[in-house]
Amino acid sequence: MSHIYERVALIGLGLIAGSMGLAMRRAGLVGEIVGTARTAETRDVAVGLGLCDRVTETNAEAVQGADLVVLCVPVGVMGAIAAEIAPHLAPGCTVTDVGSVKRAVIEAVGPHLPEGVHFIPAHPLAGTEHSGPNSGFADLFRNRWSLLVPQEGTDEAAVARLRALWEGMGANVDVMDADHHDLVLAVTSHTPHLIAYTMVGVADDLRRVTDSEVIKYSAAGFRDFTRIAASDPTMWRDVFLTNREATLEILGRFTEELFALQRAIRKGDGDHLFDYFTRTRAIRRSIIEAGQDTDAPDFGRSGDRTKT
Amino acid sequence: MSHIYERVALIGLGLIAGSMGLAMRRAGLVGEIVGTARTAETRDVAVGLGLCDRVTETNAEAVQGADLVVLCVPVGVMGAIAAEIAPHLAPGCTVTDVGSVKRAVIEAVGPHLPEGVHFIPAHPLAGTEHSGPNSGFADLFRNRWSLLVPQEGTDEAAVARLRALWEGMGANVDVMDADHHDLVLAVTSHTPHLIAYTMVGVADDLRRVTDSEVIKYSAAGFRDFTRIAASDPTMWRDVFLTNREATLEILGRFTEELFALQRAIRKGDGDHLFDYFTRTRAIRRSIIEAGQDTDAPDFGRSGDRTKT
Repeated sequence: MSHIYERVALIGLGLIAGSMGLAMRRAGLVGEIVGTARTAETRDVAVGLGLCDRVTETNAEAVQGADLVVLCVPVGVMGAIAAEIAPHLAPGCTVTDVGSVKRAVIEAVGPHLPEGVHFIPAHPLAGTEHSGPNSGFADLFRNRWSLLVPQEGTDEAAVARLRALWEGMGANVDVMDADHHDLVLAVTSHTPHLIAYTMVGVADDLRRVTDSEVIKYSAAGFRDFTRIAASDPTMWRDVFLTNREATLEILGRFTEELFALQRAIRKGDGDHLFDYFTRTRAIRRSIIEAGQDTDAPDFGRSGDRTKT
Repeated sequence: MSHIYERVALIGLGLIAGSMGLAMRRAGLVGEIVGTARTAETRDVAVGLGLCDRVTETNAEAVQGADLVVLCVPVGVMGAIAAEIAPHLAPGCTVTDVGSVKRAVIEAVGPHLPEGVHFIPAHPLAGTEHSGPNSGFADLFRNRWSLLVPQEGTDEAAVARLRALWEGMGANVDVMDADHHDLVLAVTSHTPHLIAYTMVGVADDLRRVTDSEVIKYSAAGFRDFTRIAASDPTMWRDVFLTNREATLEILGRFTEELFALQRAIRKGDGDHLFDYFTRTRAIRRSIIEAGQDTDAPDFGRSGDRTKT
């Protein structure tokens, strides 16, 4: 198979870039993989793990001669990096990213890119609570969705090529408008993360319940929140700062619903609670049928138990 | 090994009772296991799965001659069942339960039990999003905590015997005061469940984001909430109605914290967000060190991916 891209530059070498490097190489999708990261420590780890063929010290060096540049850095610094690499981009190359917010990335990155460069924002809906280059693995994107958010007028061949890369790494690809992306993600990801962070913070604060109790007895539900709330703080700070409107809108709906349930508890309205809890069960079933989660109890936590 | 109890009566044959039946039998902890359930269908399933040695049609029959009676029914019906079985209990037997709330169970069940019967409320912190007798498995309690909540003056030998049963099923056992139990569980279980139910309900309601989008893109965080929100509606209705005060207190703290984070988002206060998200990471690490969860990414969802 011929390569989809001859030289890919990964800017930022965390979980996503590391997994992309491993996945692209395993499937033979690209020629050379060049990577760079802000700290020498991360660059050394990437070399040690073989995430890239070559690691450079600067972003400018990394993008030279690349026909694909992937920005794998927190949303908040993408604009500055775009400004830095713009003079060094090869004519006709594609610039993409993996940020969790799309409108803000378009506004921050787009204006810096020269004519003739294809800018195709993207967002792979994949990740774990671990971060850094050590946490990457080649199967991260398998059966997950990667959303492409090209703006009007983007070259269709360039979009098809990027789509082929993501599909080659095992992902399903959808194309979506940036504002709709940001709203959908506010529902499926950003607000759930904020809520999980909040609940874990409450538990940590509560003086009448000790930390050791919270930890010992976490299997009753809380531990699922702690997994979500263990994600990378810088990434999530930037998500909330840059997807402010959609997150605040969904948060408003969330607190409205929560207050209605709270009132039902206070008034002893069991029917309201029962009906609400019955309705939410159906969504779980649909997610399992769509292949986006396992039906094994507790996600089939490995080593935890054996079904008899 | 001699049996810890000679005849155990399981009232209600769902996930917990089914798992207890399988665990007790596998470890040879008890003589005969007698079970009963409200519906003939559940009783038939229990017979088919061999969860009990014998299934009776009525609660009164089930408890006859039993030296341990375990109430495995929703908290809201425990009082009525206690009244029903009280005249049929063997002198000196132990009555326990597996309810998620303890003060309300003590108040509902305690007054009905005759002199000479040992009443030792209990709560195994184990479960999955599945319910019903089909979902039971013998390892459900392995390395999980079971909390015993005996009241003052309870016979210590009776408590030690029940502790031995739970330890024999693989659980760790702690003894705790009822009110403290209810507060700890409001933090580690009840409030997280209510929040998860609420978030799933919000997603279901949102007309601008379709159900199929919520489902397709759920891997970004939302799917963990749907698992929690797929739990048994009757059980959870009763939990909130009977642990009202502690749940409302923790909910109050939760919304206070959430509003502070919401304000930080609105004001663009990145430092506040970053500090908060950094603090919550540490709790996750402690839970893994305490052996209460796996460190595998995404809980090591089986079949989902392979670490390379």
